[in-house]
Amino acid sequence: MTLEGQIVAQLKQAREASHSLALCPTERKNAALWSLAKALRANAGAILEANRKDLEVAKTSGRAGAFLERLALNDARIAAMAKSVEEVAALPDPVGEVIERFSRPNGLQIQKVRVPLGVIAIIYESRPNVTIDAGVLTFKSGSAAVLRGGKEALAANTLLAKMLARSLEESGINPAAVQFVDTPDREAIQILKRHPEAIDLIIPRGGGSLKDALAGSAVPVLPHFDGLCHTYVDRDADLKMAEEICFNAKVSRPSVCNAMENMLVHRQIAAKFLPAMAKRFLAAGVELRGDEVACSLVPGIKQATVEDWDTEYLELVLSVKIVDSIEDAIAFIRQHGSALADAIVTQDKEAAARFEREVDSATVYVNASTRFTDGFEFGFGAETGISTNRLHARGPMGLRELTTYKYLVRGAGQIRS
Amino acid sequence: MTLEGQIVAQLKQAREASHSLALCPTERKNAALWSLAKALRANAGAILEANRKDLEVAKTSGRAGAFLERLALNDARIAAMAKSVEEVAALPDPVGEVIERFSRPNGLQIQKVRVPLGVIAIIYESRPNVTIDAGVLTFKSGSAAVLRGGKEALAANTLLAKMLARSLEESGINPAAVQFVDTPDREAIQILKRHPEAIDLIIPRGGGSLKDALAGSAVPVLPHFDGLCHTYVDRDADLKMAEEICFNAKVSRPSVCNAMENMLVHRQIAAKFLPAMAKRFLAAGVELRGDEVACSLVPGIKQATVEDWDTEYLELVLSVKIVDSIEDAIAFIRQHGSALADAIVTQDKEAAARFEREVDSATVYVNASTRFTDGFEFGFGAETGISTNRLHARGPMGLRELTTYKYLVRGAGQIRS
Repeated sequence: MTLEGQIVAQLKQAREASHSLALCPTERKNAALWSLAKALRANAGAILEANRKDLEVAKTSGRAGAFLERLALNDARIAAMAKSVEEVAALPDPVGEVIERFSRPNGLQIQKVRVPLGVIAIIYESRPNVTIDAGVLTFKSGSAAVLRGGKEALAANTLLAKMLARSLEESGINPAAVQFVDTPDREAIQILKRHPEAIDLIIPRGGGSLKDALAGSAVPVLPHFDGLCHTYVDRDADLKMAEEICFNAKVSRPSVCNAMENMLVHRQIAAKFLPAMAKRFLAAGVELRGDEVACSLVPGIKQATVEDWDTEYLELVLSVKIVDSIEDAIAFIRQHGSALADAIVTQDKEAAARFEREVDSATVYVNASTRFTDGFEFGFGAETGISTNRLHARGPMGLRELTTYKYLVRGAGQIRS
Repeated sequence: MTLEGQIVAQLKQAREASHSLALCPTERKNAALWSLAKALRANAGAILEANRKDLEVAKTSGRAGAFLERLALNDARIAAMAKSVEEVAALPDPVGEVIERFSRPNGLQIQKVRVPLGVIAIIYESRPNVTIDAGVLTFKSGSAAVLRGGKEALAANTLLAKMLARSLEESGINPAAVQFVDTPDREAIQILKRHPEAIDLIIPRGGGSLKDALAGSAVPVLPHFDGLCHTYVDRDADLKMAEEICFNAKVSRPSVCNAMENMLVHRQIAAKFLPAMAKRFLAAGVELRGDEVACSLVPGIKQATVEDWDTEYLELVLSVKIVDSIEDAIAFIRQHGSALADAIVTQDKEAAARFEREVDSATVYVNASTRFTDGFEFGFGAETGISTNRLHARGPMGLRELTTYKYLVRGAGQIRS
């Protein structure tokens, strides 16, 4: 059978299974999740063994450092995986939620109720825990999952996907509701994107090459891509607060999409704020790249190039720009930002309100770190991802954002005149 | 300048204008709408003159009948257009609406607020009033509009789009927020779909050829396409009610997407229900195509072909299928329907509940006509369209469905640990 034939057969199974999963009672879904958590703990040895194979292959092919670190599992990581499955079991089921209820003058009673999307394909990179995270969240949201993980985690992913399917089966749910696409061939992505009749949504969790691979997709894509985040330190900022927020936004986890990449500082407080801030950044190993004024204020800041303002570093590098006004800060963010998370630090209520109104980002902060752009931090109880889309779902996503809705209309014989 | 160059220049203007329009106060938007309504009434003569030109060209190129009827304007239609503009002015502004408010244990205050989508391109066919309807709704929703109407209405569309832009200008709003793509060249659609950096959403209002033209669009598409709707007359239906509902669903306006195309009848009541129902349909000029049982029960029913069950007739033709059970009815709807609007007629509460649960259509009816699937009938106050999408918006769309949201997060120095 061709690769396309194989994958299409999987997609057909997923579509078929999605119909009964959509009607599956909450209790049965949760039972499957509890049984999965148990199985993960009981089979930690086998999971680690599969992971060891993946690590060997990766090392042989020259992978090193942070890559291997992300790929590696250990007892603590498996325990964390099991715990996160239990947390998803404890979350409210989004399916069936009545979003709105209204009636019409002609007596029609209308309810807008949440229903599963259908079949969701998730394409992700090498961390094997995403197989469980993404699979479990999609399952709880009532949709069939088509999982396509990075080839470097193939052995562990295959095992984990099997365990997930087995847990469904044990609870009387069609295990075909979880499909794992186990070919390392990147052509698989091209095949998935050609089948809108079988897949309702593709969620890509990854970088630029995944974005390119999905260009022209016939299936709708909910991108989880770039984060080029700003913090603007206003003229009327509490400078100590600003220092804590900026330091946290850059340093607490530089590799993630909600980390700060560009820091904007109002000219009038730059001389007061920047030297101490820069000293702290430099001491933490952050490379600073600034405009002329920033360089003149602080030794140890390199001159930024024009590319720097548009670069998502995802490491300990920060661009620093001195601006003349809040207008300039807002215009700069519009030009260079990715509209994911941007912050102002200010004590001036008018400036805060203006920033909130005029900065059109998924999450706009006043006096807080951009690092809070995250499903858990927003209280959604799950890390479904952070949408960089404007349609359907924007910013941190919870289970609800993985669903759609339908209208139930109850009448007593109404006809339209 | 090339066609692509011209259109890209328009898109840039629209994008630029969208930023200020997003911040435009409700009062100013409404003032522009009131002034447009006035201008439409005052310039009815010029609009009719432009429409006359369009009609002449259409006649010369061999158009006739219903096509010309849809294209033609008259005083009453212009008055209706002006009135609908005033109705949109009276609708609540969706922009700025607080959808949700919550706080986190760390003290962060989070608001989810509605904001405009940005730039919306609307591609539609020949009725010139859509230029006003679609333009005005997009404008009120705070997004810049890129309008692309059918070439047969070019003269009237051009004039109407100019009047809309002038009304914006008179109210101090950048008229570039309304762009009309005035080339008859169908290549324009290919150009629009290549520019996701400039367009946030394409809404196509049309049929199959438009669907094909938009395949592979790099810009997200919110389709308004097929409607293959069913009514299932259950064993426990009130047969008089069923007759009224089915007649209304088929006959009241057969050319629209929420009209019934397939009627399913439970075997146990078929002999009682079908003869009278068929007689009424036949008297109204409806051609009936049935399965074997239906043909055996009623003279005058033609044998249906396999294609009939999957055909959206959009005219006075109806397929009739006898089913053995509600299970069969639901399975038939899943297989043949377009998941837009499907109805059950029954007095059996369990059957009704089952139909509501298992039929996954945008609008699911119990004891009412599918013809209610419509923005006005749902009380949304506007006819933004009926989405056949599962993502972002499903079923009847109002102004809110033309928007997105952002999160405002207010802190007092919170950082993430």
